[in-house]
Formats: sequence, C-alpha cells, structure tokens
Amino acid sequence: MAITYEFVKTCKQTGARLGRVHTPHGSFDTPTFMPVGTLATVKTMSPEELQEMNANIILSNTYHLWLRPGEDIIEEAGGLHKFMNWDGAILTDSGGFQVFSLSDLRQIEEEGVHFRNHISGEKLFLSPEKAMHIQNALGSDIMMAFDECPPYPAEYEYLKKSVERTSRWAERCLAAHKNPDKQGLFGIVQGGEYEELRRQSAEDLISLDFPGYAIGGLSVGEPKDVMNRVLDFTAPMLPENKPRYLMGVGSPDSLIDGSIRGIDMFDCVLPTRIARNGTCMTSNGRLVVRNAKFSRDFRPIDENCDCYTCRNYSRAYIRHLVKNNETFGFRLTTYHNLYFLLKLMEHVRQAIREDRLGDFREEFFEQYGFNKPNAKNF
Amino acid sequence: MAITYEFVKTCKQTGARLGRVHTPHGSFDTPTFMPVGTLATVKTMSPEELQEMNANIILSNTYHLWLRPGEDIIEEAGGLHKFMNWDGAILTDSGGFQVFSLSDLRQIEEEGVHFRNHISGEKLFLSPEKAMHIQNALGSDIMMAFDECPPYPAEYEYLKKSVERTSRWAERCLAAHKNPDKQGLFGIVQGGEYEELRRQSAEDLISLDFPGYAIGGLSVGEPKDVMNRVLDFTAPMLPENKPRYLMGVGSPDSLIDGSIRGIDMFDCVLPTRIARNGTCMTSNGRLVVRNAKFSRDFRPIDENCDCYTCRNYSRAYIRHLVKNNETFGFRLTTYHNLYFLLKLMEHVRQAIREDRLGDFREEFFEQYGFNKPNAKNF
Ligand SMILES: [Zn+2]
Ligand SMILES: [Zn+2]
Repeated sequence: MAITYEFVKTCKQTGARLGRVHTPHGSFDTPTFMPVGTLATVKTMSPEELQEMNANIILSNTYHLWLRPGEDIIEEAGGLHKFMNWDGAILTDSGGFQVFSLSDLRQIEEEGVHFRNHISGEKLFLSPEKAMHIQNALGSDIMMAFDECPPYPAEYEYLKKSVERTSRWAERCLAAHKNPDKQGLFGIVQGGEYEELRRQSAEDLISLDFPGYAIGGLSVGEPKDVMNRVLDFTAPMLPENKPRYLMGVGSPDSLIDGSIRGIDMFDCVLPTRIARNGTCMTSNGRLVVRNAKFSRDFRPIDENCDCYTCRNYSRAYIRHLVKNNETFGFRLTTYHNLYFLLKLMEHVRQAIREDRLGDFREEFFEQYGFNKPNAKNF
Repeated sequence: MAITYEFVKTCKQTGARLGRVHTPHGSFDTPTFMPVGTLATVKTMSPEELQEMNANIILSNTYHLWLRPGEDIIEEAGGLHKFMNWDGAILTDSGGFQVFSLSDLRQIEEEGVHFRNHISGEKLFLSPEKAMHIQNALGSDIMMAFDECPPYPAEYEYLKKSVERTSRWAERCLAAHKNPDKQGLFGIVQGGEYEELRRQSAEDLISLDFPGYAIGGLSVGEPKDVMNRVLDFTAPMLPENKPRYLMGVGSPDSLIDGSIRGIDMFDCVLPTRIARNGTCMTSNGRLVVRNAKFSRDFRPIDENCDCYTCRNYSRAYIRHLVKNNETFGFRLTTYHNLYFLLKLMEHVRQAIREDRLGDFREEFFEQYGFNKPNAKNF
C-alpha cells in the first residue's frame, strides 16, 4: 500500500482525530493543510522555503500540468518530484474540478467529458482512464479519482445520477491505475447536501477499498453551516483507518471546524491567492498590508508570528514592495500566510493531544474576530 | 573616513588592480560587481540569497526611493539597511541619471534641475543639496555626488560647460553632506569622449579629495571601443589609493575589459533585467531559456555553473515556469545571472592574483562567443 494512515488519538472534547499519514515521500501529521502548487510551483515559493515552514505535502493540479507543460515532459524529467525539486509528498487532483469550473463548452457523457482547453480553445477529452494516465505519469504520491463536480446548488435527482456516475467512474479509475504500489488513489464522496446521497456515495466507494477518501462538492459557495452539517453526517460514514481529505478548504475557521468533524487533510489556494493581493492572515484577523495606514507602521505583519517574514520585515516595507508590485513583497506575504495556516494546524494538533480543541477554537475565533457580529471576509 | 581602499596588487599581464574596499557595513574584494536593488529590493531576490551568492555590496536608486516610499519613511525605519534587512554595504546613486533620462520636461539651472515625477507628473526639484539630504536620510555606505548626465553624443562646448557645472555641484555636495564619518561620498568624473575634459573633471574632483571616484557618462550608447579608449586615458588620472567605479556596466566583456583598465566597481541592471525576460548568461554565451527548443532539455542552464539554480533545476522546468510567468522561474534565472557575474568577478580577481587576466580574457571571450565574427547581443 502506497498510503497508510496511523491513528494516534481522538480529542475527548471534540472528536477530532490526531494521526499520521505515510507516503512514499515521507510522512506527515494530521490534521494538516496542503499548500497548492498548481503549475509545479507553489506560487512565489521555493521548495526549501516550503520545507522550512514544515509543509510536508503539497497539492498540484493535473488539469493544468496536462496542458502546460504536458505530463509527458514531466514523466521524461523523472516525474513531478524531480521536475520541481520537491522531495516531500505530492497530491494531485483529478482535473475534474477544473474541467467542470473552467470550461464553458463541455459535454458530459458516460465515457468522460468533452471540453475546450481554457487557454487555446482546443477540443479535449478527459475521462477516468485519461486522468489516471496523467497522474501515473506525474508520479504523485496521492492521486484523486475522476469525479463529476456538480454545480451548487443542484437538484436531488441530478445529484443522484451524478453520484452514481462518480461511483462507476471511480471503479474505472481503480482499474486504470497502473502504479498502486507507489501511488495511492483516493475516492471522492459526492452527494451535495443530501445525507442519503452522501451515504450512497460513501458506501459505493468504501466497497472499492480506496486507501483514502475525499469529501468533494463542498466549499463551492454554500454557507458555512451547510458545510459543517454535511461534514457532521458524512465524516462518520468513512472508515476510521483511512485518511479523510476535505477539498478546497483553507480559511482558518473552516480548518478548525473541519478538524473537529474528523477531517485530516485540507487544501486551498486562499492563502497564496490573497497574499498576491497584499492580504495577510494574522492572529487578529485579516490585514490588508497594501493599505495606506501601514506606510509608517514598522511592526511585523503579525506580532504573534515568528515566521521569516515577521522576524525580519515591517508592514511599512512590505506595503512599499506590494504597492510597487515587487516580487519580494509577494514572497513575504505568501510565506507568512502559508506559515500561519501550517502553524494553525500545529496548534490544532496540539489541542487534540491535550483534549482541548473546543477551547482552542473559542480562543482562536475570539482573537481572530470570527465571534464579532456579522464577521465577514475571513 | 567611512570608505577606505586597500590596494593588494597589480596584474603584471594587464595592469588590473586587486584590492579591498572597507565600509561601515563590511568589506568587499575588488574588482567587484554590485547587483542593483532599485526600490530597496534586488528584484525577486531575498537578502539571504544575495549573501549566499557572495554579493557584499548592492546599489539602490535615490530617485526611486525618494518618490517611493520617500526617504523620510526609510529614515524613520532606521535607514535603508534596516528597512530592507540588508547588512552588507549599500551604494546609492545621486538621482541625477534618472532625472536626466526618465523625465521629458526638465529644466537645468545652476541651482539644480526642475522636472516632472515620471509617475504622477508632479513638479519636482533636485539639486546637490537635495540629493545629499536624501542620501543622508537613506544612510547608504557610499553616496554619489549629484552630477549632470549629458546625452550621448554631445558637443565639446556643451560637455565643457557641463563638466564645470558638475565640479561646482560636487563642491556643493561635499558641503551639504551631513554624515561623512559614516557615509563616503564619491565624485563622478564626466567629460564624454574628450581626454581634455576628462582631465579637467578629474583634477577638479581630486582637488576636493573624495574617498572614491566614479567614471560617469559611459555605457550610454557609445560603441565598446569608445568606452575602452575613454577608460584607457581616464582611469590613470584617478588616485591609486581610492576606489574607482564605472557606472552602469554589467556585460561580461565590459566587466573584464573595465577591470583590465583599473576599474574596481561596476553595477548594472542587465543581469536582473534580462533574467525577467527568461534570458540567462552562461559560460557559452546567452541562453534564452524561454525558447521552445528547451522544453525537453533536462540539463542545467549552465553545465559549468554550481549555483542553486543550476544544481537543482533543468532548462525544461525553468522554461515551463518562465513561459507561464511563474515568479519562481524569474527567481531562478535572476539568481543564476547574478551568481554568474559575481563568480566571473571572482575569476577575474584570481586571474589578477596569478598575473594572467589577459589569458583569462582570451579564454573567457572564446568560450562565451565574443570572438565570433559580428558577435552581438552579449
Ligand atoms: Zn509571519
Ligand atoms: Zn547557475
């Protein structure tokens, strides 16, 4: 088995899980957050910087790498790890999400999806077999099954058909996967807000015995209480001895709330994307360092942070760089944001160890500002 | 004296000087190349990366920092070193070059230059006193006198008046300089292609006893043999016990040819600017890594280079990043280009030590391709 999950303990206060995932490229403690490196690079960062902030696993996007530079070039380079000089673990998505969200013209058939390349307009076809072929060529440690990503909201009847198709596609993925000894394939549970559909999806996939399971179709625009409610009933459907991955989630509150509901892995472009807009996550909420009020503020981004950025640079300097589109400014904000979330997950794990994740949640939410009336934009 | 020059030896084969310059922020061996950090950042690089490649002195631009973020903010931060977290030496130019090259509307008077801010269009005034005031606030180790930078080519009569004004301005700079114990002010020898004017300029400035001298008005569009001829007669006019700085020069051939003529310091945006266009300097000449022919080339940028980029990444990977405008690609090309020039200067110093800089020149030129007929674009 390429991927195994080692259960450590449950938080007595919340039920959150502390664990460890073992991959062919090292192990990582869970719950954890995975920085996103869409095009074989976590935007602005070096592999050494990611190591330094204790990122042990990153995510890369199958769809984007298929188009640019092409999975054949990466395979010829010796695989994605070697191509991008990253020795840690890599998870690749299936490309499904991008096909369903980026392409205007797409046609879903039982065989797969016809669509147009979002860059050149060229006609392309993605299927379970093709998604496996690409991910096998990339050589990621964790591969994702090719699923249908329905829009939000979607009707029950549509979702039911979609779940059934996703199960049939999952079976085809498993059959097409060429390298199960070195790459673990995760199934993706769909089913929208419907407990019945989530159960059907989970049971279908569990019968196929994947080494890990993702929960898809969340963080697609639904309110946070809907996400939490779906997690409340979906996570317990999943096997206790396999890792559980909640796709596309990266806001601090959702990382904590997902952990409390038994999720082990998260990913999101949020910290890197807002960093490139000059926005930082801090222990006191978001800080838009680009704002004029920071032009003479010589304090660090976050006075409670001990990252490279906060140890060495002031808000005034970073504002100056960001305002002038200087690359180093975006390096500094990106570094801080990723460090902030990775450190948050370290705190979450420590709180689980001490059976006090509920208390930690309250303290963190209070300081961050989530408890303020109409708290927004966090 | 803030800045002192320690002469070590002369190359018996060429007359090039080996030396060491001492500043309040450390010493550096000469001849050397100074990376340019216009806006208090060497584009895409961190201070640690610059240290790692043995850059001991960098250049920053008075004009740009005056406009953005303003020298008052940098002074409030504790000076430029602290603002940008750089412990090595910093040289700042006077702002003159930018005022003369960037602004369309300018009016030169004895008092100074009226012009419009190239960003906002606002009316501004720069003078010897103002240039000193800004550089004193920045706290650079080496400051440059405010000189008139005539266009190329210029008439003898115009240049003569310009040289005389530059000498009067130099005297005013010296008088306005508030911090000579901690910041060394260099004079700038002008005079175009005319030996007589260069001599007049040098004599005027030497009588003011600056701790170092720059040669300005070169690398402004004249042919390389003109530059070398001017250096041939100008460098010997300068005191042997002071550092000599040739402004705006950064192509490998000119660094070698300038060293041979007794120059100790060089700066240029060339290596960082072409890096951001995906062009690398290598021991075999320029390599445009963006080109399609490198898409499956898994060799390093330069097989003779042992820099971070060349030890860890392939042309194929860097091409992929650069083509997709990924920041990390520009970090890698910038790192390599700066390392390449700093390493070149290390080779130049070693060749001076061994009295064989002439031989080194021949070998380097041959391998780089400078000896090819009609060698261009190097
Ligand atoms: Zn920080
Ligand atoms: Zn290199």
